[in-house]
Amino acid sequence: MRSAAISAIRAFASSSRISGSPVIARHLHASAGSKKIVGVFYKANEYAAMNPNFLGSAEGALGIREWLESQGHQYIVTDDKEGPNCELEKHIPDLHVLISTPFHPAYVTAERIKKAKNLQLLLTAGVGSDHIDLKAAAAAGLTVVEVTGSNVVSVAEDELMRILILVRNFLPGHHQVINGEWNVAGIAYRAYDLEGKTVGTVGAGRIGRLLLQRLKPFNCNLLYHDRLKMDPELENQTGAKFEEDLDSMLPKCDIVVINTPLTEKTRALFNKDRIAKMKKGVLIVNNARAAIMDTQAVVDACSSGRIGGYSGDVWHPQPAPKDHPWRYMPNQAMTPHISGTTIDAQLRYAAGVKDMLDRYFKGEQFPLQNYIVKEGKIASQYQ
Amino acid sequence: MRSAAISAIRAFASSSRISGSPVIARHLHASAGSKKIVGVFYKANEYAAMNPNFLGSAEGALGIREWLESQGHQYIVTDDKEGPNCELEKHIPDLHVLISTPFHPAYVTAERIKKAKNLQLLLTAGVGSDHIDLKAAAAAGLTVVEVTGSNVVSVAEDELMRILILVRNFLPGHHQVINGEWNVAGIAYRAYDLEGKTVGTVGAGRIGRLLLQRLKPFNCNLLYHDRLKMDPELENQTGAKFEEDLDSMLPKCDIVVINTPLTEKTRALFNKDRIAKMKKGVLIVNNARAAIMDTQAVVDACSSGRIGGYSGDVWHPQPAPKDHPWRYMPNQAMTPHISGTTIDAQLRYAAGVKDMLDRYFKGEQFPLQNYIVKEGKIASQYQ
Repeated sequence: MRSAAISAIRAFASSSRISGSPVIARHLHASAGSKKIVGVFYKANEYAAMNPNFLGSAEGALGIREWLESQGHQYIVTDDKEGPNCELEKHIPDLHVLISTPFHPAYVTAERIKKAKNLQLLLTAGVGSDHIDLKAAAAAGLTVVEVTGSNVVSVAEDELMRILILVRNFLPGHHQVINGEWNVAGIAYRAYDLEGKTVGTVGAGRIGRLLLQRLKPFNCNLLYHDRLKMDPELENQTGAKFEEDLDSMLPKCDIVVINTPLTEKTRALFNKDRIAKMKKGVLIVNNARAAIMDTQAVVDACSSGRIGGYSGDVWHPQPAPKDHPWRYMPNQAMTPHISGTTIDAQLRYAAGVKDMLDRYFKGEQFPLQNYIVKEGKIASQYQ
Repeated sequence: MRSAAISAIRAFASSSRISGSPVIARHLHASAGSKKIVGVFYKANEYAAMNPNFLGSAEGALGIREWLESQGHQYIVTDDKEGPNCELEKHIPDLHVLISTPFHPAYVTAERIKKAKNLQLLLTAGVGSDHIDLKAAAAAGLTVVEVTGSNVVSVAEDELMRILILVRNFLPGHHQVINGEWNVAGIAYRAYDLEGKTVGTVGAGRIGRLLLQRLKPFNCNLLYHDRLKMDPELENQTGAKFEEDLDSMLPKCDIVVINTPLTEKTRALFNKDRIAKMKKGVLIVNNARAAIMDTQAVVDACSSGRIGGYSGDVWHPQPAPKDHPWRYMPNQAMTPHISGTTIDAQLRYAAGVKDMLDRYFKGEQFPLQNYIVKEGKIASQYQ
């Protein structure tokens, strides 16, 4: 059993300024002894007992309760995260660490950060920390970390599934089956091969690259838009061509996949005007973040046929309300936010969270690639 | 415009015997002049006008009507293929060529062959000719050809889609969306990555090999069972391991894909006993033929959880009746028979049929790989 946490005092760069507000120094490893750790996860209910590896649920609680409590830490887990009277809100004033996920996001607003006087560490179990007000977190001197890489394979595989579901017009076929119908024509008139089509990814970071690698044997025309050109070896390996200008790439694509984080630059990037520049009938896959799309513009374009199909697992907000229009638009192949929370991904991000908590207790640095906010600075992909 | 058909008389191997019955000699190119050609395709109805390349429908009629009629041939197209009073039955006595597809199969029984005194050529627009009684066709001296390779890419892509749909537990997620629900746990408790899983294909012919190539970057453990070992180059390229004994391979597989033709040897190959030998929770994809499975054994195993998910587009019979039990079993991701009839595949098999009709009129041989029955002999994959 690991011994009690070792403390280490590291002052954050209190002199730096983010967005004009002074960074209030908080001390990540300010004190030894008991920490209050709060985890916000989706509830599994009757599904909790169905899989011993279901660690990402509130019941599974990342499998770290015994380990935390044996070291004298307090571990509160809840799925109740919204409104002034929710369980999360009760613990905001005195928690030290908040563990949250993109699948059931605990929205960490500037207001909550202000209230959280003891808060030092915001840990995203998974990838994607836009549910946290990163500027406010940076200004407050908090550390924000993700388990970088923990579910990139999961998401890339899921994207390829969604591409095929749209290209093949799978869902109308399945719905015929369960409705007792049989009408091959009603599916086939807009079912295509993926082979020979042009697929463009907006963003070619970890997930985008894994997607391109998996697309390679499908003999498509692969394009990517990113801030940076890939290294030539990876470009050769995938055969993908760099497109510096997004608006030049989009009209070439039969299929567009969104693989960019949500930032102020990408918010509503796909508005009515940009969608109008795309091929008529374009298929869009978005497992990145919903707010990269203008919600109503997507509904209108799916209704008019300008977008031929839209599939993804990200919504704004989450959980998606019953009346979210994407639930009811034509040619959608949506799911709740699941692509990054496969059982395999849960095992990886649970291990990653445990490792970082261990480092936190010991006053050690985190793996460099995991930092989203460090010493008042926001990671480049979120700028 | 091509001139009128050139006739050529080639007697079939009337001395050979298939299944004990004497081969009745028919003459493939017995006479010049007008031929009666019947095509059986699914009706497109309101979808016919929605895509100018929708050639595989009864309305599209492979796009060869003008070409055939300009040469003086008669071309009857129908979707009405069942029962003693159907449109197809009326033309059986005097047709020369029957074009059919696996998607809306015209069942060519021994009885129909007996009635079809002028019949010379059975042309499958697509791949898979088990809707034809091949023994009876061979005994009658008929020629049966497919458009080999015309939709192998389409089917392999579709199989990979279905693997991912099952591995990710996609459909329960989508149904939550359209039902106004949100329950990540109800999906995630049995959603996995494909990476690291063992995938076995039963049959590694054209489609199985294309699937293995596409699976390669997913970092799975790939196995294949076939009559023959692949050449070492292809084995190296895909990294798939040969399994000589089917019953040794099956217990190793998380996912089994059926890629073998329906023959007397493969009929009901997956019965209750064989399914019982597979991993509990195995995922099965079958775009090959439904009769390779014992229908009720699949229903029972899906209900008990022994099969964790079953997806495919093939049914017995087709169209599947409203009360077909596979429509209503749990954890199915079925569609009507569509994987080989994408618009791209239709363009390829329409071109292949036209080419073979042209050769038929000219008395030329067909591409060797297209023959399923030739001169009283059935192609090896159907034996």
